[in-house]
Amino acid sequence: MKLRLHDLIDFARGAAFLGTGGGGDPYIGRLMLGRALQKGGKLNIIDLADLADDALVVAVAMAGAPAVLIEKFPHGSEAEHCLRAMEGELGRPIDAIIPAEIGGFNSAIPLVLGANTGIPVVNADGMGRAFPELQMVTYSAYGGTVSPLVLTNEHGDVVTIRSKDNHKAELLARCLFMQMGGSAQICCYPMEGRFLKKYAIAGTLDIALGIGRAIARGRSGGDPFEELLSFLASTEHYRHSKVLFDGKVVDLVRKTGGGFTSGVASLSELDSSDASFEIVFQNENLAARSGGRTLAIVPDLICILDRETAEPITTETLAYGQRVKVLAVSAPDLLLTDIGLRSFGPQAFGIDEPYRPFEE
Amino acid sequence: MKLRLHDLIDFARGAAFLGTGGGGDPYIGRLMLGRALQKGGKLNIIDLADLADDALVVAVAMAGAPAVLIEKFPHGSEAEHCLRAMEGELGRPIDAIIPAEIGGFNSAIPLVLGANTGIPVVNADGMGRAFPELQMVTYSAYGGTVSPLVLTNEHGDVVTIRSKDNHKAELLARCLFMQMGGSAQICCYPMEGRFLKKYAIAGTLDIALGIGRAIARGRSGGDPFEELLSFLASTEHYRHSKVLFDGKVVDLVRKTGGGFTSGVASLSELDSSDASFEIVFQNENLAARSGGRTLAIVPDLICILDRETAEPITTETLAYGQRVKVLAVSAPDLLLTDIGLRSFGPQAFGIDEPYRPFEE
Repeated sequence: MKLRLHDLIDFARGAAFLGTGGGGDPYIGRLMLGRALQKGGKLNIIDLADLADDALVVAVAMAGAPAVLIEKFPHGSEAEHCLRAMEGELGRPIDAIIPAEIGGFNSAIPLVLGANTGIPVVNADGMGRAFPELQMVTYSAYGGTVSPLVLTNEHGDVVTIRSKDNHKAELLARCLFMQMGGSAQICCYPMEGRFLKKYAIAGTLDIALGIGRAIARGRSGGDPFEELLSFLASTEHYRHSKVLFDGKVVDLVRKTGGGFTSGVASLSELDSSDASFEIVFQNENLAARSGGRTLAIVPDLICILDRETAEPITTETLAYGQRVKVLAVSAPDLLLTDIGLRSFGPQAFGIDEPYRPFEE
Repeated sequence: MKLRLHDLIDFARGAAFLGTGGGGDPYIGRLMLGRALQKGGKLNIIDLADLADDALVVAVAMAGAPAVLIEKFPHGSEAEHCLRAMEGELGRPIDAIIPAEIGGFNSAIPLVLGANTGIPVVNADGMGRAFPELQMVTYSAYGGTVSPLVLTNEHGDVVTIRSKDNHKAELLARCLFMQMGGSAQICCYPMEGRFLKKYAIAGTLDIALGIGRAIARGRSGGDPFEELLSFLASTEHYRHSKVLFDGKVVDLVRKTGGGFTSGVASLSELDSSDASFEIVFQNENLAARSGGRTLAIVPDLICILDRETAEPITTETLAYGQRVKVLAVSAPDLLLTDIGLRSFGPQAFGIDEPYRPFEE
């Protein structure tokens, strides 16, 4: 896969769509990646299938409350600092990096690091979307270990966590994200190529670009939603998708706390002001409900888009009065197995209801 | 210095006295140390002067809210686990360990580790008393670096913090203490013998034993307070000491939060119930006040003792109705220099008044 300067707007838009409300701000991700490429950085994006079985790969991301990123812009050197600290921990050079999740910012972070260092970036991720916690990743669900988990910040502080329990590592890391000002750069999940070939979600960087292009195509003449739905249907991972709701935001409760951006958005029909549709989020959109009925729930993707342009709207830029369409998209298969649902299903978010595919 | 099984009651009592309310529970410290010696552990306590100039020494302690220790008894292997992780970080064996502070529990922790591993323990510490935060130690005040700071808990989790800023490392560690259940085992401040010879508080393990013995001597016939005051006057570090107040505890506000045990104790004369004396604490006793006047303040030691037996009372065992004497003791010289007061003076605890030696 190639990703050039003129692709970045489409790519960031598609990645933000897959971020399903989270995954960080696409504008900031695009700026950072654009600058890395303009400075002469070369991207080497490799397919999962081309990864050597014994290649050492680590996941790279920015973690914490996405709302914080908008004001606390990364310094730029944190990611490489983090990677080098990880190499020190592992005692050998890292062969490739892989996104932890796809989202507007967290798809860009490994690419910026790849462009700055020449280290190959794998065209895949551990969710095929974004999730708020570090153990919510196929790398963990299918037996990988998050440790050593290295955190760095803009001041050059480095913290390394080693725990046998990925969820405990997340809890330890989460309090550090807060203490570090709401977010931190992380490297984690040292994995071998052979493991990733089975358990990573393949091709998601490519798909993000495809999504962004489909929306752009629809804007110039056709209907961006039609183009988007038809492109999604052609992908390996996102077979079902539909518009769940068309309306406007009439109420929004959002707080940044505990290391997350959490809340509830209430929507009404366009010609009404009575809230008839609700989206609950914790960094990402978790559940969409109407009239007491759940219409879509994690791990299926719930995406809020501008109703004219189909521009994805992240939870931290969601605002009163926005006119939006809400899409549901089926999650990749690896998230929907019994193993997957244990890590990514409603219970993992404290929601006491079973997962039901939205398309049923 | 020798420390034998039959010395432990006196030693723990004296160390608890120097803990000035904090430094952890002396009973638990004594139990752990007694068991280590009964199992055949050999203590090798060396004097500061006998340390090689290039010896690699690290500080060892249990950190967090002391109240937590009473219910969350250490597993026993955390300290060695922590030490070995520190050796891994430093890439070489550690030649000796040194207490971070003197207190009922935190004097015992390095001794237990020394008895279990055979590693020499330096007869000295970094405060000559106890303080609540990791940068409140002569090792920091006089230019040492807390990093790498290794934390372990009873589950075998290991976290390593590297920061150029000791106070920032404290803030990062403090949230981890809370996440780890209120306390954690730590190894930190890798230092050379030549540095410690200048900046550690020498002989404090010895002095703790001397204090405990003086109190015991006073109990069998004389007056424990007279014996205590006269012994303190004979030491290098604690030249001035006096009884500030004699009365009973009539009110107590104490909370465990933010990784500390904090609060205020109000005392009255024995034949009154009107509070006329107040002690503010954050793990340790910070200030003693009466009638709007400060009688003693950090870094001078403020020690609450049972008024009959002179048994030291820690902030977490302080209780309504206790009949107590409150002693003030002058702090070691290294805490009273301009450099020392910046780290240990009232301002370091957010108390907006100048340090004045209690004896003036």
